[in-house]
Amino acid sequence: MPDARFFTRRGPFTIGSLAAIIGAKVGQGSDPDHLVMDVAPLDKAGPEDLSFLDNMKYVGAFEVSAAGACVIGKRDGLRAPEGMALLVADEPYKAYALAAQAFYPEPVSTGNVHPTAHVDPSAIIGPDCDIAAGVVIEAGARLGARCSIGANAVVGRNVEIGSDTHIGMCTSLSHCQIGDRVRLHPGVRVGQDGFGFAPDPRGHVKVPQLGRVIIGNDVEIGANSTVDRGSGPDTVIGDGTWIDNLVQIGHNVRMGRGCIMAGQAGISGSTHVGDFVAIGGQVGLAGHLKIGSGARIGAKSGVMNDVPAGESWFGIPAMPLKFFFRRHATLTKLSERKAKPNE
Amino acid sequence: MPDARFFTRRGPFTIGSLAAIIGAKVGQGSDPDHLVMDVAPLDKAGPEDLSFLDNMKYVGAFEVSAAGACVIGKRDGLRAPEGMALLVADEPYKAYALAAQAFYPEPVSTGNVHPTAHVDPSAIIGPDCDIAAGVVIEAGARLGARCSIGANAVVGRNVEIGSDTHIGMCTSLSHCQIGDRVRLHPGVRVGQDGFGFAPDPRGHVKVPQLGRVIIGNDVEIGANSTVDRGSGPDTVIGDGTWIDNLVQIGHNVRMGRGCIMAGQAGISGSTHVGDFVAIGGQVGLAGHLKIGSGARIGAKSGVMNDVPAGESWFGIPAMPLKFFFRRHATLTKLSERKAKPNE
Amino acid sequence: MPDARFFTRRGPFTIGSLAAIIGAKVGQGSDPDHLVMDVAPLDKAGPEDLSFLDNMKYVGAFEVSAAGACVIGKRDGLRAPEGMALLVADEPYKAYALAAQAFYPEPVSTGNVHPTAHVDPSAIIGPDCDIAAGVVIEAGARLGARCSIGANAVVGRNVEIGSDTHIGMCTSLSHCQIGDRVRLHPGVRVGQDGFGFAPDPRGHVKVPQLGRVIIGNDVEIGANSTVDRGSGPDTVIGDGTWIDNLVQIGHNVRMGRGCIMAGQAGISGSTHVGDFVAIGGQVGLAGHLKIGSGARIGAKSGVMNDVPAGESWFGIPAMPLKFFFRRHATLTKLSERKAKPNE
Repeated sequence: MPDARFFTRRGPFTIGSLAAIIGAKVGQGSDPDHLVMDVAPLDKAGPEDLSFLDNMKYVGAFEVSAAGACVIGKRDGLRAPEGMALLVADEPYKAYALAAQAFYPEPVSTGNVHPTAHVDPSAIIGPDCDIAAGVVIEAGARLGARCSIGANAVVGRNVEIGSDTHIGMCTSLSHCQIGDRVRLHPGVRVGQDGFGFAPDPRGHVKVPQLGRVIIGNDVEIGANSTVDRGSGPDTVIGDGTWIDNLVQIGHNVRMGRGCIMAGQAGISGSTHVGDFVAIGGQVGLAGHLKIGSGARIGAKSGVMNDVPAGESWFGIPAMPLKFFFRRHATLTKLSERKAKPNE
Repeated sequence: MPDARFFTRRGPFTIGSLAAIIGAKVGQGSDPDHLVMDVAPLDKAGPEDLSFLDNMKYVGAFEVSAAGACVIGKRDGLRAPEGMALLVADEPYKAYALAAQAFYPEPVSTGNVHPTAHVDPSAIIGPDCDIAAGVVIEAGARLGARCSIGANAVVGRNVEIGSDTHIGMCTSLSHCQIGDRVRLHPGVRVGQDGFGFAPDPRGHVKVPQLGRVIIGNDVEIGANSTVDRGSGPDTVIGDGTWIDNLVQIGHNVRMGRGCIMAGQAGISGSTHVGDFVAIGGQVGLAGHLKIGSGARIGAKSGVMNDVPAGESWFGIPAMPLKFFFRRHATLTKLSERKAKPNE
Repeated sequence: MPDARFFTRRGPFTIGSLAAIIGAKVGQGSDPDHLVMDVAPLDKAGPEDLSFLDNMKYVGAFEVSAAGACVIGKRDGLRAPEGMALLVADEPYKAYALAAQAFYPEPVSTGNVHPTAHVDPSAIIGPDCDIAAGVVIEAGARLGARCSIGANAVVGRNVEIGSDTHIGMCTSLSHCQIGDRVRLHPGVRVGQDGFGFAPDPRGHVKVPQLGRVIIGNDVEIGANSTVDRGSGPDTVIGDGTWIDNLVQIGHNVRMGRGCIMAGQAGISGSTHVGDFVAIGGQVGLAGHLKIGSGARIGAKSGVMNDVPAGESWFGIPAMPLKFFFRRHATLTKLSERKAKPNE
C-alpha cells in the first residue's frame, strides 16, 4: 500500500463504478457491488485490492493471487482464483492505469501562492494556480488556469504556459510557449541558447539563437532534460510526446505527436522526427536527419542517416535491425571458428 | 521574424555599414545605402532581410530567394536574384553571425540587483551587474563588471568571476574561478567534489577533493553540464572552449583552447585534451589519456587510448577512422556473402 | 597547496599520530615526531608534505620526490630518498585518503539557518543542521542531526533525511527517505515520477507512480543525477553505493551495497543490481534485468541480458569480456587480410 505520507487515496469504488471509469466490463459471475479499496501488483495484492494481468508471462502469479479483483484482457482459458472479481478490458494495462488514477488522482491546485514566491507584477497568473516557495515568475509571463509551479522553479520573461500544466521544482523556462496538461519534471531546462557558432581559431563566433521552444499539449519531459531554443526556426515538441530524464533536444529539432524517448537519449540540431516514433535509452540522432513516423530506434544506437517511416533500426552507425543482427551473427560464427584449434 | 516578446531588434543598417561591421565587401553593383531591417534564412527572407549562402547545397534556395540582401563567399558563377544586394566575405557564415549579433546584441547589464536576491555583505560585486530574483551570492564571492546572474542561481563561497560573464538560471558554482565573457547556461554545476575514493568492501573511503575548477575567458558551457573540481591539481577549461548540454567533465581534466564538445559527451578524470579538439555527441573519454591538439573524435565513440594530434578517431573502442571503416566494410561484405544461399 | 579560500587545513600532525589515525606503521628508522603540515602528490610535495606511493608505475617519481613523508605499501626494495619519513600501510591509497581527511575534514554543521531559507513550521529539523540561503523545506519534512542543505535546494513534503547528510545546492527531493552520512551533490533529482504509461495513439495514459525512493547510509550521488521513484515497489539504493554525475536510475531499480557507478550511466526500470557491482561510464542497463553481485560492466556497454555474479561484460549488446575481445580480434585479422592486395 502506497506510503500515506506521499500519496492520498480516494475510494473505495465498486467494481461496477470502476468498470464505467476505466471502460471495462464486469466479468460474468462477478458482483458489480464488490468493493475495492486500493490497487496493487498481483503478488502483493490482498482481498481488498485491484490488480491486473496484461502479460501472459504472469499468468502463474495471477492464478495464485490473493487480489480481490483483477483487470484482464478478453482471453479465454484463464483460471481465476475463486472469489476474484474480474473486469474485462481490451487493453488491461491502460484500464488498470485509469483505475490507479481514480484511486490516486493528481493533486488539485488550490490557488495557493506562497509568500516567498516572487511574481512580477506584470505577470498574468490564471485562476487557481499553485506557486510554491522560492518560485520566480518574471515580467510578462502568463500562466493559464490550475497550473502548479514547484519550489524554486523559474518562469522566465514573457514565457507563456497553458492550463493544468505542472512545472517541477528547480526547473527553468525561457523563450518558450508551453501547452495544456504538460508535465515538466524537476530540473528541466527549456529555451536556453542552442549550440550555434561559426568556428574560428581566433574565437568561435556566436550565432544569435533567435527562435523559441514550442511545447504542445499533454507533453511530459523528465528530470534534468534540456530543450534548446531554435536558431531562427523554433524547436517544437508535438502533442502527447513523452520524454524521459537527462535527454537533450538540440535547436530547431521538431518532434511530432505521441513520440516516446527514453532516458539519456539526444537529438542533434535541425533533425525532424515524425509521429509516434520510439527512441530507446542513450540513443543519439545526428543533426539534419528525417526520422519517419512510427520508426523505432533501439537503445544506444547512433543514427547517422534518415530512417524511413515504420522501420526498426539499431547499432552504431544505426542500420535496419535485420542487417545489424545478420552482421552480429556472422561475426559470432567467424569468431567461434577462429577459437577452434583444428581450423 | 523573431518573436518580439523574447528578442529586441536593433537597426536598420545599410549594406555599407554592415559591411564594415562584419568585415565584408559590398558586391559590385549593390547599393551601399540599401537598407536592411532584419536577418532570416534564405527560404524565409523577404525584401527587407539579410540572408546568407555558406553551403553550395543551398544554391538553389539562393537563386529563388526573396532576400533583399545576402552574404556570400568569393565564389564566381553565382546567379543572384535580380535586385538582391550582395555582401562578399571570406567566411560567409561567420560574417552572417556578426550581422545577426548587430541586429540582436546580447542584453546589456544595467546594474539591477533584485530585492529578493541574497548577496552576502562580504561579497564584492563589480559595477553594473544584474542579479536576478532568488539569486544567492555567498560570503567572499567576487564578480567583475557587467555580469548577469540568472534567477535562483548560486555563486558559492569565495568563488571569483571575471567581467561580462553570464551565469544561467538555477546554476550553482563552488570552488572555482571563472574568466571574462563566459556564458554558463541554466543548471550548470561547477566545482563540486570529483568522484574520488579508495574502494573498500567495508565502505569506500572518500579522498578529499582539494583542487578547484579554473575556467578561462570566452568559454560557453551548456545547460545541466557538470564540471567537477580537481582532487589536488585543478580542473581546467581553456579560453574559447565551447561545451554543449549535459556534458560531464571529471576531476583534474585539462582542456585546451578553442575545443568543441557536443551534447552528452563526457571526459573521465585526469585526461588532458589539447587545443581545438572536436568531440562529438555522446563520446566518452576514459581517464588519464592525452588527446592531441586538433584531434577529432566521432560521435558516440569510446576512447580508451591516447589520440595523436590531428587524427580523426571513431568507434568503441575508438580507433583511427579509416580502420573503423575498413572493419565496417569487411563485416558488411562477409555478412552479405553469408546471406547468399549458394555460397 | 590547496587554495585557502576554499579549503581549511588542520594540523600539523606528527608521523606517529598520523600512523594511529590512518592505521599504518611508522617505518623503521623514521622519527615518529617528524611533523607533517599538508598532503600533496609525489611530484608536488615538499619537505613538509605527506605523499603516497600506491602504484609501482610511480616508483621513479617516488625515488626523486622531495616529500618529507610518504605512505607506502609493504613492499621491499623501495629506495626512499634520504630523510623521507615512511608510513607503511596495507592499503596505501586508502591510508592516504584517511590522512587527507585528517588535514581537510568535512566542514562541521553549526546549526545556522539562513534567514532567507523557508522552513515550513511543520518540518522537524534535528540539532545543528545548516540550512543555507534560499532553501525550501516543505511541510512535514524531517531532518536528523548535523545535516547541511545547500543554497536553493528543496526538501519536499514529508521527505525524511537521516543524520550527517549533505544535500547539495539546487538539489530537489520528493517522495523519498534518505539515510545517514549521505552526500547528494548539486542538482540531483530524487523522487519524481518514473516513466510509466500505457502507450495509446490517442494519448499515452499515465500510470500513477505510487512508490518511493529509499537511499541507504553512506551513499554518494553525483551532480545532476536523477533517481525516479518506484511505480508501486520502491526504488532502492543500498548502503555505501557511490554514483557519479549525470546518472539516471529508473523506477523500481534496486541497487545493493557498495556499488560504483560512473558518470552518465543509466539503469532502466525494474532492473536489480547486486552488491559491489562496478558500472562504467555511459553504460546502459535495459529494464527488468538481474546483475549479479561483484559483476563489472565496461564503459559504454549496453546490457540487454542478465549478468551472472562476478563476471566482466562489455559491448553493445554486452557479452562476457573474452567473447568481446575474441570477436574484436577476429574482425581485426579479417580486415587486415582484406587490406592486403595479394590475398
